[in-house]
Amino acid sequence: MIKTLENLPTGSSLALQEVIDNLPWNAQGLINAVAQQYDSGELLMVAWMNKEALLETVTSKRACYWSRSRQCLWRKGETSGHTQEVKSIFLDCDGDAVLLKVDQKGAACHTGRKSCFYNQIIDDRVVVVNDKVN
Amino acid sequence: MIKTLENLPTGSSLALQEVIDNLPWNAQGLINAVAQQYDSGELLMVAWMNKEALLETVTSKRACYWSRSRQCLWRKGETSGHTQEVKSIFLDCDGDAVLLKVDQKGAACHTGRKSCFYNQIIDDRVVVVNDKVN
Repeated sequence: MIKTLENLPTGSSLALQEVIDNLPWNAQGLINAVAQQYDSGELLMVAWMNKEALLETVTSKRACYWSRSRQCLWRKGETSGHTQEVKSIFLDCDGDAVLLKVDQKGAACHTGRKSCFYNQIIDDRVVVVNDKVN
Repeated sequence: MIKTLENLPTGSSLALQEVIDNLPWNAQGLINAVAQQYDSGELLMVAWMNKEALLETVTSKRACYWSRSRQCLWRKGETSGHTQEVKSIFLDCDGDAVLLKVDQKGAACHTGRKSCFYNQIIDDRVVVVNDKVN
């Protein structure tokens, strides 16, 4: 259904509930979710969402993912306090990925680094390029 | 193996080939790949890579993905000319996602839009917020 927006101009829209009901959820009922710091543009993390996590994120404006390892809703920062306040939400062209522009409190990464993408490929090495923020 | 870098400081490194050989490739031999415009920070697209695609991207400095629909290497822009010149490459903390900072020629999205993330969730609607660039 979201593909019906492909050839429509800016301002065209569909009802959110209908779009969500018809997203191409994978065999586990998931789509990719990417979190980006809203002001700096820094990519923070890639995770997964099921329908419930997406609806909760839309409603609460706090990022909620699906933890594949724990098989439960993962309310980001619930234990660490490192919450993500959601500023805006976007779906991609075919609806199998969602982008959250967020304000990250503290570290997005479980290692204590702001972003999970701290391992840079430089020539034939993988190099740590960021230290912990807390 | 990449997790051995978790608690190491900036500048610590591992051999790329060993890291790649030990990434947590999924059942289809894939990891997520995210492309971001290197200077503006705009998130362009989310796709997939197998080992061959990642190695080719590292070597050629042109983004190469794995097309799940066509089941073949997808050299971005090969037919459209909308190539992605790779400026830098990062792996996330657990190695199941790769970030490419790229210079996108033309449109990343098959719809002709710069980014695939042109559908914004605004209240109870999904709204097209970007027009085509070509």
